Amino acid sequence: MPYVNIKVTREGTAPGASATTPAQKAALIKGVSELLRDVMGKPLDSTFVVIDEVDMDNWGVGGVPVREYRKRSP
Amino acid sequence: MPYVNIKVTREGTAPGASATTPAQKAALIKGVSELLRDVMGKPLDSTFVVIDEVDMDNWGVGGVPVREYRKRSP
Amino acid sequence: MPYVNIKVTREGTAPGASATTPAQKAALIKGVSELLRDVMGKPLDSTFVVIDEVDMDNWGVGGVPVREYRKRSP
Amino acid sequence: MPYVNIKVTREGTAPGASATTPAQKAALIKGVSELLRDVMGKPLDSTFVVIDEVDMDNWGVGGVPVREYRKRSP
Amino acid sequence: MPYVNIKVTREGTAPGASATTPAQKAALIKGVSELLRDVMGKPLDSTFVVIDEVDMDNWGVGGVPVREYRKRSP
Amino acid sequence: MPYVNIKVTREGTAPGASATTPAQKAALIKGVSELLRDVMGKPLDSTFVVIDEVDMDNWGVGGVPVREYRKRSP
Repeated sequence: MPYVNIKVTREGTAPGASATTPAQKAALIKGVSELLRDVMGKPLDSTFVVIDEVDMDNWGVGGVPVREYRKRSP
Repeated sequence: MPYVNIKVTREGTAPGASATTPAQKAALIKGVSELLRDVMGKPLDSTFVVIDEVDMDNWGVGGVPVREYRKRSP
Repeated sequence: MPYVNIKVTREGTAPGASATTPAQKAALIKGVSELLRDVMGKPLDSTFVVIDEVDMDNWGVGGVPVREYRKRSP
Repeated sequence: MPYVNIKVTREGTAPGASATTPAQKAALIKGVSELLRDVMGKPLDSTFVVIDEVDMDNWGVGGVPVREYRKRSP
Repeated sequence: MPYVNIKVTREGTAPGASATTPAQKAALIKGVSELLRDVMGKPLDSTFVVIDEVDMDNWGVGGVPVREYRKRSP
Repeated sequence: MPYVNIKVTREGTAPGASATTPAQKAALIKGVSELLRDVMGKPLDSTFVVIDEVDMDNWGVGGVPVREYRKRSP
């Protein structure tokens, strides 16, 4: 009964999107559940996946908010 | 000084509600704090409870988003 | 399908115990699962509970490790 | 490669603010990343920081939602 | 810069193993990092994965510890 | 009443140590509690800090366990 939490910044990565799309979320859920089945034999039904989208201001790396970090190291 | 995190899908379970109601949240906070006091002797004041409501699109089970899962196994 | 994470310090609170006992853990699991059923109508089978015991050195409050904090404010 | 998660109630603590400000978030990110560098030698670039703002209704202490708790113990 | 946390019960699922093996852990890390690259375009280097193995006594489902749950619903 | 969770790999960073030392943990607890006081006005007593040390095998970056990652990019 695995539990998986995926955190990503809230921003568009698909064409025209400003956030993770429902299709991308479904693909993450499917992919990670199948991974746990294939690697560890966990039945799909026993895996919970929770995706958190985190505002860009709320994610830091390199000691600065992520937007500023990307300007620095493009 | 326990810390409890409760994650539920964002949806109404009380009549007419479309999300967890403040009364339900207060009942969860009260119940779990009392549980830690009764089972482990933790003073109420020392327990923190954080409730996260997770968008239905962001919660997966059975390899699919929860809305699709419920259609399958009603 | 709620997910609950309970974090407590690793120490005995039952007589003669030096850690949370299996009976206490079972009581926490039962109590919080029943709470989610009673407050929000969640079926017992759909609730996951994960208990983390955290070493006393690794838990801080009041700006100091918890052991030191308790000496201060008994 | 440390990972730090900071959870605070969603409320203003700077003058005129009703939520944590971008400047406060940047200060938290900078401060905690520098702390991990100074205490443990972790390079700034290897530390991730995620800040979660939690609705006042969703945070409990003392067995009640935080707003009610503060009325009691001002 | 995604962050992924995978929680599984501490038990062997590979032949002869009593815990998740290093090879299984490496396969989970590889798989989920590639998934985030393929679905969302996240570079492998920007994804952190943390695997938590949780003692069987500390994981509950159906209102009981997982070992008891499995006896019930084999 | 902030809650801070710090996750680091379990390895020595102080001379002669094979894990985070109690003194380093106390310094992290002090530093991050003071940071929340200084930036957001949170009283020291209201901040909880939990430090998780994660086995090297259980931490991944760049699609591989961290030990392998460091060999690659020293």
